[in-house]
Amino acid sequence: MDKTFNSLAKEYKDMLVDNVLPFWMEHGFDPIHGGMYTGLDRDGSILESDKSVWFQGRALWVFASTYLTIEKREAFKEVCDSLVAFIEDHCFDPQDGRMYFRVTKDGKPVIKRSRYIFSETFAIIGFAAYSRAFGKKDYADKAYALFQKVLKSLETPGLLIPKFNQENAPSKGFGVPMILLNTAQELREACPEHKEDLTKFIDGLLKEITTYFVRPERKLVVEQCAPDGTLQLDHIEGRMLNPGHAIEGSWFIMREAKYRDNDPKLIELGTTMLDWMWDIGWDKEYGGIIYFRDALGKSGSEYWHDMKFWWPQCEASIANLMAYSLTGEETYLEHFKIVDAYEKNHFLDEELGEWYGYFHRDGTLSTPLKGNMYKGPFHIPRMYMVCSQLLEELGKLQQKV
Amino acid sequence: MDKTFNSLAKEYKDMLVDNVLPFWMEHGFDPIHGGMYTGLDRDGSILESDKSVWFQGRALWVFASTYLTIEKREAFKEVCDSLVAFIEDHCFDPQDGRMYFRVTKDGKPVIKRSRYIFSETFAIIGFAAYSRAFGKKDYADKAYALFQKVLKSLETPGLLIPKFNQENAPSKGFGVPMILLNTAQELREACPEHKEDLTKFIDGLLKEITTYFVRPERKLVVEQCAPDGTLQLDHIEGRMLNPGHAIEGSWFIMREAKYRDNDPKLIELGTTMLDWMWDIGWDKEYGGIIYFRDALGKSGSEYWHDMKFWWPQCEASIANLMAYSLTGEETYLEHFKIVDAYEKNHFLDEELGEWYGYFHRDGTLSTPLKGNMYKGPFHIPRMYMVCSQLLEELGKLQQKV
Repeated sequence: MDKTFNSLAKEYKDMLVDNVLPFWMEHGFDPIHGGMYTGLDRDGSILESDKSVWFQGRALWVFASTYLTIEKREAFKEVCDSLVAFIEDHCFDPQDGRMYFRVTKDGKPVIKRSRYIFSETFAIIGFAAYSRAFGKKDYADKAYALFQKVLKSLETPGLLIPKFNQENAPSKGFGVPMILLNTAQELREACPEHKEDLTKFIDGLLKEITTYFVRPERKLVVEQCAPDGTLQLDHIEGRMLNPGHAIEGSWFIMREAKYRDNDPKLIELGTTMLDWMWDIGWDKEYGGIIYFRDALGKSGSEYWHDMKFWWPQCEASIANLMAYSLTGEETYLEHFKIVDAYEKNHFLDEELGEWYGYFHRDGTLSTPLKGNMYKGPFHIPRMYMVCSQLLEELGKLQQKV
Repeated sequence: MDKTFNSLAKEYKDMLVDNVLPFWMEHGFDPIHGGMYTGLDRDGSILESDKSVWFQGRALWVFASTYLTIEKREAFKEVCDSLVAFIEDHCFDPQDGRMYFRVTKDGKPVIKRSRYIFSETFAIIGFAAYSRAFGKKDYADKAYALFQKVLKSLETPGLLIPKFNQENAPSKGFGVPMILLNTAQELREACPEHKEDLTKFIDGLLKEITTYFVRPERKLVVEQCAPDGTLQLDHIEGRMLNPGHAIEGSWFIMREAKYRDNDPKLIELGTTMLDWMWDIGWDKEYGGIIYFRDALGKSGSEYWHDMKFWWPQCEASIANLMAYSLTGEETYLEHFKIVDAYEKNHFLDEELGEWYGYFHRDGTLSTPLKGNMYKGPFHIPRMYMVCSQLLEELGKLQQKV
């Protein structure tokens, strides 16, 4: 990659607005019932006619944020308006106000996962971005109200029934504080009047993350531990590391560092998390961030433990570029470049657009589909968006030199 | 494989009693708390200290059936007694009598999956085999009572909450009638006084299977359909074929044919199911039965769709050998031989015993572990047991010729 930051910034921006988003507008967007299909085959034809609730909120965040920060294209607004209507009309259970996980194409409930709050968190960031992009303050208020509801659900004993019996197998997970961090950051941008309380809330999340999940004694970010912080090394779930997930968390923290005038402690925290999880997550034999690793190096148990998924690569791109922009350390730029090359050589579908999502460990394609209930317009366009902005900033610095 | 049936029968029997069962007795059996660990690494060291409830029942079936039909080894009885005590003392929820899915090593509940009845069906076949092996009629009665409870759970609306909303996305699955067929067959052996009612019950299951899941118009056994039989081809789950599962079902039906004095209609049904699903399930490029196929040939969606798991190979061994023994058609024997070779060349761990469980599509190893919550002492020892018996029968016929 002997490109200037500016030319690469343009390349990433073009991938976002001329390749990835158009793929979803053409094939995923549903002008008949509203909202977005995500179960799409390689050519965009529909594999699954049900719709993911996660992705109505996530797509809303992506299209609204692109409109807000990259390009004010009218077609993006049309998609956003449709997603908002679909979410409000069809994705909430009127009985308890909780959100579904999967609905039919015309919005009838199919699956509700009452143990998780992720449908809600993705709707919150979607509403927040929609509010900012189109000056609709009422959606910032709706996002804030939904956020309060999520917090209440998390705090009310018995409301979210955990999969594991909390008396006999109690645990704390990294996933919840990590996703709340991103949610609160997005919400804060849309709700200046709640800036202080949300920043204070984020302080609490950072404390939880550093107390329980960032483990200097093993140089690891763990996904779960006992409520007192003990590592649960007798259990597969207790040893399971998810490098892409931890690296995603690392850049949420670097983003917070940037928000707080390049807070050196948070830069140190975020880059340390990245360093550890890059070391264990990057596959030195075949390239790519591997899905799972075992904290004690024991055999993997999830069937897909050694696969290469699209999203951990996206998170590694963002985290390394952000670490470089915050520290100037060349290693991060080198890592960004090798992830960029790995993505181009494997994931990018040069013929039909967008990315493949699922490779075997050795880099052979597992399935050519473009989307399902877990892959849709989120990690890839977010990566192109965040990286194009970082590259643009770096380009400006480069020109000054 | 230029071996006589007799020498192969001995080889399969030796694998069962001198390799696979000793591996689990040495590494899985827990003399301290009773019961069986199944989360074992390649060398038998413990990966997961919780215990699978499925496998307490399944292991009981395997050890008791081996004692009953293969070899009366005292150590097998000790394992059975311990499994029975562990199941009765720890695996039932005293509140509603339903069974857990996962418990701690000392038997405290960790996960209860209230939507499924598989913990119960495996306990039923375990109790039934235990009753027959050791002349304990009270366990046949317990098995029968638990079976009635399962049927009641399945019939009582609202007791088992399905994952999919049955109003907006109603479906029927092959899994339940298929597992009930095997459960009723095992129970019938232990409860001669219920022979007639269980045979009649099996008639109903066979009718359900042929009406809904065996589809001559596509030459496929499907895993689910709408309640009126319509194929749900707009949905990933509606198109998803599981050849190993359908092939397992095919030999349950062939077994029923044998029980009914070689009923020609049931032989035809079982072998037809095998033929179709072998055609679509056997990987002509790399060998092995593949995990999933799409009924319309669209892209796979589950991450592990193209992997080679241990158990579909086991089911293909049994089904092909049983089809050969019932029909004399050489093709089935050829298929049995190529599965046998694939198993030996990939799955068998010649150094440390037992089988690996998880290979990539191309036959490279994904993980060397020997067990987890889904792999334990069941499919592999059952395959060696059933096949050694079939091979012995074939050996007797061969000697007569």
